[in-house]
Amino acid sequence: MQAVRIAGAGSTAFGVSPERTGRDLFGEAARIAIDDSGVPRADVDRLCYGNFVGTVTERQGHQGPLMATAAGVTAPATRYESACASGGVALKSAVEAVRSGAADVVLVGGMERMHNVTTERATEGLAMAADDLYESRAGVTFPGAYALMARAYFAEFGGTRAELAAVAVKNHRNALGNETAQFQREITPTDVLEAPTVADPLGLYDACPITDGASACVLVSEEYAAEHDLHAPVEITGAGQGTDSLALQQRESLTRTPATTRAATTAYDEADIAPGDVDLLEVHDCFTIAEVLALEGLGLYDPGAAIDAAAAGETTADGDLPVNLSGGLKAKGHPVGATGVSQVVELTKLLRGDHVNSDAVPDATVALAHNAGGTVASATVHVLEVCA
Amino acid sequence: MQAVRIAGAGSTAFGVSPERTGRDLFGEAARIAIDDSGVPRADVDRLCYGNFVGTVTERQGHQGPLMATAAGVTAPATRYESACASGGVALKSAVEAVRSGAADVVLVGGMERMHNVTTERATEGLAMAADDLYESRAGVTFPGAYALMARAYFAEFGGTRAELAAVAVKNHRNALGNETAQFQREITPTDVLEAPTVADPLGLYDACPITDGASACVLVSEEYAAEHDLHAPVEITGAGQGTDSLALQQRESLTRTPATTRAATTAYDEADIAPGDVDLLEVHDCFTIAEVLALEGLGLYDPGAAIDAAAAGETTADGDLPVNLSGGLKAKGHPVGATGVSQVVELTKLLRGDHVNSDAVPDATVALAHNAGGTVASATVHVLEVCA
Repeated sequence: MQAVRIAGAGSTAFGVSPERTGRDLFGEAARIAIDDSGVPRADVDRLCYGNFVGTVTERQGHQGPLMATAAGVTAPATRYESACASGGVALKSAVEAVRSGAADVVLVGGMERMHNVTTERATEGLAMAADDLYESRAGVTFPGAYALMARAYFAEFGGTRAELAAVAVKNHRNALGNETAQFQREITPTDVLEAPTVADPLGLYDACPITDGASACVLVSEEYAAEHDLHAPVEITGAGQGTDSLALQQRESLTRTPATTRAATTAYDEADIAPGDVDLLEVHDCFTIAEVLALEGLGLYDPGAAIDAAAAGETTADGDLPVNLSGGLKAKGHPVGATGVSQVVELTKLLRGDHVNSDAVPDATVALAHNAGGTVASATVHVLEVCA
Repeated sequence: MQAVRIAGAGSTAFGVSPERTGRDLFGEAARIAIDDSGVPRADVDRLCYGNFVGTVTERQGHQGPLMATAAGVTAPATRYESACASGGVALKSAVEAVRSGAADVVLVGGMERMHNVTTERATEGLAMAADDLYESRAGVTFPGAYALMARAYFAEFGGTRAELAAVAVKNHRNALGNETAQFQREITPTDVLEAPTVADPLGLYDACPITDGASACVLVSEEYAAEHDLHAPVEITGAGQGTDSLALQQRESLTRTPATTRAATTAYDEADIAPGDVDLLEVHDCFTIAEVLALEGLGLYDPGAAIDAAAAGETTADGDLPVNLSGGLKAKGHPVGATGVSQVVELTKLLRGDHVNSDAVPDATVALAHNAGGTVASATVHVLEVCA
């Protein structure tokens, strides 16, 4: 089995870019990643690409070939879709391709463009991540679904809106100097608590924004990296994927995310690490409660114990376990199909020492990326380690 | 590398089933394939699933988890989308997973449901396989695009509508006894030539229908098959994928399909066979001209030489190289995301001897499946061989 190295990584600016097409966005991210890698385009063996609602926002399916052209590669190209985990599943497939020797060089990335349509239409698209028959038609929106999970959490374990607010405050602070982040400004607990309610108990600042953007990484085999003398100090040592029932109503619990746990178990096993070995992580904080559930699902906190992690300073930049140093989905932004790859872009830079927040984790060697789809019906976990 | 065996295969009836949901259709196909295999559901390591326009026709993205539940499996599930080649790319990924040892048992399948929406809406969905900016918005429909290819072919090589009609007549005849086929009735050359024109030179009978249906296969490693004493006499010995520019206008030629050729080259190399070794094949005949282009792209005929293959009886059931013994997309039907897997379902039965048309190919040992997306911007080729 070939070890998988990250040779290049890059993202477009995340934000509001209705004037830019999807192909334009992905082409830029791919160029940044390929330039960062030093790998010639002709060496790219395949493109693994994540996108969620391109058929809704751009009337564009079949984006694999389109994005290969945008990236300037002629390799076989496939689109992966698993709602907000589309980037993560594309990444897992890319890792497997390099590991198995099926490919030496894989361009992996994702893109989402949503500000070119109305918010209503974008919301309608996002709702397609839920079960149409049993959830969407019954009026369940994603803020509504996560509000249900938050309420169930509060009922089962206790917890306050102020503790959730600390998650949003932390992630906004982390994004301050991140030049590709959508929101590079601080917010206060009062901002969060006094913001309009979206779905009780979640307010506007408990939710991530709608984002246009793209991310890409170039993965290479260790052998290829050595032969071509590439600077690729970060290795992907674990890659797991988990699936749960699509509809919340089919789950045993609203406060557990077994898909995350399954993905993490695989990733930890492959990397031969324990949860306690992780130095920093990016988790899927589409809502503040989602970060809490992720930390518990990943085995980093017991069920019911992660609610005050941000408020207590444990997961802040200067805490023991920095979470979402990029700003997370909340402040970095959430271009859906790109998110799973963007987390790895951020972690690669953090581990290489060329991220604005690298100083917060000078001795970090093990990082984890957690990407989730829908109400965590899909999850991927990747472990990144600095090579000795 | 593990050899990949087909342990089970099955499809729903293909046709017009607006009353059946996608999950209902796929659940049935999965059940047939799993029952055919004798593999316990708990042994399924992953689900690779193809679907094209579920967001358009069922407002349902994120179908991986949904279809895992429908199939009764809890394994990680991923949706692959490459327009009409969605099933083929799911299959290729499934083959790679078994080969590399990442999985011992993979359930692979696909589904499309389109008759629950208006024909206009279905057509709009299908158009998303083309380049929205450069084709769809300019008024190019899929019949229009393939009509352009047919006209270019006639201009470059010669050819007649009657020769194309022979493709449709052949495929309808092949579907006569195929109990899952959408059209189990013969048509005459006159029917084809006198049918309403859809896009000159293509008429109604030059086009495949809109189809509801699902297909699934259970792939296992040779080791797993031996350990569990499974009846799995068919091996997938080659799996290739090719990508071309999405828009026709970016291609060097309208009469060549290099994505098919690239996919075939990989598949032939892996299987260590030459085109002449193929005994029978299923090709992507979304339009009659598409079958002609496929046979040439696969290297079975020189450019310009396949136009009269059906008319001359070379590719009929009693010809030297039977093509689309199932009835093809034309008569078996084309449930888009399922098609690439349905071809392998049909070929598996043909090679095992339990297909209504097996008698036409009693000595066949090598079969090929060709699946294409859009105007062949995506293509997959799989080689199936009977194990000695």
